[in-house]
Amino acid sequence: VKELEIIEGIKKQAGKPGKPVAIGIGDDCAVLYKDKKNYLLWASDMLVEGTHFKIKEAGYKKIGKKAAAVNISDIAAMGGVPEYILVSLGVPSGIKKSFIGNIYKGILGTCKPHEIKLIGGDIVRSKKLVIDVSILGTVEKNKLLTRSGAKKGDLILITGPVRDGKKEHLDFRPRLKEARFLTGKYKVSSMIDTSDGIALDARRICSASGVGCKIYSEAVPLTRGLSLNDALYFGESFELLFTMSATQVQKLFSDKALRQKGPSFFIIGEVTHKKDGFRLVNKNGQINTLKKKGFKHL
Amino acid sequence: VKELEIIEGIKKQAGKPGKPVAIGIGDDCAVLYKDKKNYLLWASDMLVEGTHFKIKEAGYKKIGKKAAAVNISDIAAMGGVPEYILVSLGVPSGIKKSFIGNIYKGILGTCKPHEIKLIGGDIVRSKKLVIDVSILGTVEKNKLLTRSGAKKGDLILITGPVRDGKKEHLDFRPRLKEARFLTGKYKVSSMIDTSDGIALDARRICSASGVGCKIYSEAVPLTRGLSLNDALYFGESFELLFTMSATQVQKLFSDKALRQKGPSFFIIGEVTHKKDGFRLVNKNGQINTLKKKGFKHL
Repeated sequence: VKELEIIEGIKKQAGKPGKPVAIGIGDDCAVLYKDKKNYLLWASDMLVEGTHFKIKEAGYKKIGKKAAAVNISDIAAMGGVPEYILVSLGVPSGIKKSFIGNIYKGILGTCKPHEIKLIGGDIVRSKKLVIDVSILGTVEKNKLLTRSGAKKGDLILITGPVRDGKKEHLDFRPRLKEARFLTGKYKVSSMIDTSDGIALDARRICSASGVGCKIYSEAVPLTRGLSLNDALYFGESFELLFTMSATQVQKLFSDKALRQKGPSFFIIGEVTHKKDGFRLVNKNGQINTLKKKGFKHL
Repeated sequence: VKELEIIEGIKKQAGKPGKPVAIGIGDDCAVLYKDKKNYLLWASDMLVEGTHFKIKEAGYKKIGKKAAAVNISDIAAMGGVPEYILVSLGVPSGIKKSFIGNIYKGILGTCKPHEIKLIGGDIVRSKKLVIDVSILGTVEKNKLLTRSGAKKGDLILITGPVRDGKKEHLDFRPRLKEARFLTGKYKVSSMIDTSDGIALDARRICSASGVGCKIYSEAVPLTRGLSLNDALYFGESFELLFTMSATQVQKLFSDKALRQKGPSFFIIGEVTHKKDGFRLVNKNGQINTLKKKGFKHL
């Protein structure tokens, strides 16, 4: 995918960031040293009218909601706690003040339950509506989750039935609770949010970890009406995709807190050797390649 | 100005940020507690094709340069040292890879002399080119400069002859050296960068500080060919506007380091009582109101 190549190019241009940076370009967040016990997490995600939403379909409040939620999801995917946001907003010159108010209502309403504070940003004129949220969060050093720790033999899991990104991409709950539950009690070897579809995001974990993967097509949990194809290749569902050793998964599934009213997790595949590539296996054992495609941001 | 009203509205909606936030919405950067001795500075500035640049006139490299420079200027205005950036980039779907490369060349070339590291961001599809840079920096607690400390009787200064924002807005050097020189050796009571013109930015200092001001029209230093009107009301010059007590100014102007090869500073006005408003005074003593207008981001 073009986007991945371009990001690789930027990474080379930018060079190695040096000591106080734990992780630079190439994960859901950048990771900086904060203090002895904690890392600072930092991400930004841009939403553009026409690419990520249509105003008439979405309405201003839901656009604001999504702009906050995709960023919160980035912090969740690293195992952290979101704390602050800046909002850069580009709006058409004639826009009503109440529309701008509704955008911020959507943003602030999504931030409030997590006690995330809006503390600055920018507002400029733009023909098409564009929102870029920058988010800061914190994660305890021993709870940091990255894309790069998956090991051969680990199982691949997902936080919930994949939702229809085409219909529900504006109105999802970032899987913050699930991520904090997992990283607080279990050893999660890698994690990512499925913003671009299971196929592409599993590939991202695999290339960061130097492994391959096998997805069991029948095991992917789908919400009513969603096709496997869209779950794999459309994205915008924002569930968390993660890997754990089989022993850890066994512990997880016998967790009482989980069985009673906790979040639900689903095994959908297995981490394999790098040379085995990216495979999709059905119940009859037929093997297909997991295609290299996903949500087209670019 | 509409932008100021809207920002006031957002500030009300967002509410008080609470303890770990030293300054939220309403200065050049948000300010967070970092450690015993330092604050974390955080800002984002969005540039949109058509509003802030035209691609044909500017070229991709200079657009990248400006995107980095306006953010570095925000950190300078708070007395700090810029350290890291994230870049969110929206580009048309057919754009050449080399054009994207040139944007990052401009960004990285501007960051390099200051040892600022690019550590992440986002890249998406957008009809019009849009860049939002988010920047993190650090400032020693006793060196933090804000908009809110100007006192009646203080003098108003600027870091250099005002340049022609219409022509040079893509290619300016953020006044980082000047700000660090000042905050390291002198008591600066307030500071802002003149992104939107002296009139509007002086007004911002005044409303944050609860004072009025008097600008001496003949004292405003202009680069060759620039009209006073554009210096006051057009902006995009990115000099730093700041206030100091008369005693501090006297010390500053007798500073040997400054007289030999240091930066140059110019007195352009005086801080007055709030009730005296915003005035423009010429050499004959004629008084005009400093108009409430500036660069139209919105």
